[in-house]
Amino acid sequence: MNLLLGFLFFLGFSSTVSAEEKFDSHLLPRPLILEYPETQDILQLKGSDDAELQLQCTSWRFAVEANNLNPWKTIPSKCADYVKDYMTSRAYTYDLERVSMEAGTYAKSLQLAGDGMDAWIFDVDETLLSNLPYYSDHGFGLEVFDGHQFDKWVEKAAAPAIGASSKLYEEILGLGFKVFFLTGRSEMQRSVTVENLKNAGFTYWDKLILRALEDHGKTATLYKSEKRSGMAKEGYRILGNSGDQWSDLQGYAMSNRSFKLPNPMYYIP
Amino acid sequence: MNLLLGFLFFLGFSSTVSAEEKFDSHLLPRPLILEYPETQDILQLKGSDDAELQLQCTSWRFAVEANNLNPWKTIPSKCADYVKDYMTSRAYTYDLERVSMEAGTYAKSLQLAGDGMDAWIFDVDETLLSNLPYYSDHGFGLEVFDGHQFDKWVEKAAAPAIGASSKLYEEILGLGFKVFFLTGRSEMQRSVTVENLKNAGFTYWDKLILRALEDHGKTATLYKSEKRSGMAKEGYRILGNSGDQWSDLQGYAMSNRSFKLPNPMYYIP
Repeated sequence: MNLLLGFLFFLGFSSTVSAEEKFDSHLLPRPLILEYPETQDILQLKGSDDAELQLQCTSWRFAVEANNLNPWKTIPSKCADYVKDYMTSRAYTYDLERVSMEAGTYAKSLQLAGDGMDAWIFDVDETLLSNLPYYSDHGFGLEVFDGHQFDKWVEKAAAPAIGASSKLYEEILGLGFKVFFLTGRSEMQRSVTVENLKNAGFTYWDKLILRALEDHGKTATLYKSEKRSGMAKEGYRILGNSGDQWSDLQGYAMSNRSFKLPNPMYYIP
Repeated sequence: MNLLLGFLFFLGFSSTVSAEEKFDSHLLPRPLILEYPETQDILQLKGSDDAELQLQCTSWRFAVEANNLNPWKTIPSKCADYVKDYMTSRAYTYDLERVSMEAGTYAKSLQLAGDGMDAWIFDVDETLLSNLPYYSDHGFGLEVFDGHQFDKWVEKAAAPAIGASSKLYEEILGLGFKVFFLTGRSEMQRSVTVENLKNAGFTYWDKLILRALEDHGKTATLYKSEKRSGMAKEGYRILGNSGDQWSDLQGYAMSNRSFKLPNPMYYIP
């Protein structure tokens, strides 16, 4: 999530462009008109029966988390209540706790080399910090992303920690990993991001990497792959990676293990 | 799924070995005793309240589909009814239909080069063919996998087609892709696999790749990566890949887009 997401939307990318496509795809000419398939068409809801709706929205959410969906702009309108209920209930908390627990189990199973080159990457938004206070005012993904409004929220440095991630973060630090925060936020938001991270209890990191000027316009998949590749070239072994978007995790120079935090509210390519 | 899965289990792999680990990990010395964490421990169910159980088993299933779980041997015993209900209800069908639809939308959005080198890979078990008749007799993943019993089922060539995958398969063929079937089954099961595929309506393919003698003992991730790499070296562009296991999809020489079919019944590394 970053201040340029809105800009990226207007740059436009065709419905064929996805997080897993070839990495030179950003160099190809693109239509200037957004060609997302309509999310409502993707979710072919026939009725309004509550149990049926629940079933179909759960199926949609599974497709989000398994990275099966084509690029999408908003959640399906018929799933608005479903997503709200999920995000504000213990279902979301359980999913966060599970991924934190599995990541911790994996991390503890590793034998670190002890040379200070074993690294774990964390994304920031919806991974360490929760923007739920913002999204609860904006339909939990039902509204098209408004970069201007979101930036105003970011400037407050008020995003709370995701509890399950705080726990994992402390474990990872305790095990002796180098800890890298890799965010789609802009370098211009560094100071407010530092402030927010510290407010939320994330007081230490080895690197906090934000989008520099030359990264703007790149997909998150490309930008984050380039940064991971840079770490690998410096000799770091990226053993774990935690993120709420597949674009945090996929591409090249991938981590040995990736952990996908739940997020049915938005999609970043 | 293949006849050697049971054998692989007995070869043993530690809890640190996963589908996404370094590919030389199969060369490392491994303990001969299976070190899977107990699935029941992973699922820390506190009560037996039905709604709570539903919530926690759903969370477990999400973790399966998002590839967040550490290696597991059986489904959590408390989720036995949950998995059975899922596999035998329209929830599973909806998930299959969605992934087929999304894959079809993606496939149709591509412009094929027309040189016959654009390829789509399908896994076989739980992707084209359903072994649900077998698993319904074996607790839907509650029983530890029994390679001997499973092979007897395979020999019947009686696995029905997964309807949503038949639809995608026809679309993919119609669009002019080269179609490769890449399965963890053994080369010794070629003729019965051909018979079963034809019985189920999958009457054409460009290559049907099974595990040769030298592939036995490799993780599915490694074996399938090697085979994809071979295709790429022959000049094929792997544009799509459909599989029910992350080990069908991840590793190296990955497809431009991968589609993860649902399968909460078993895990293949």
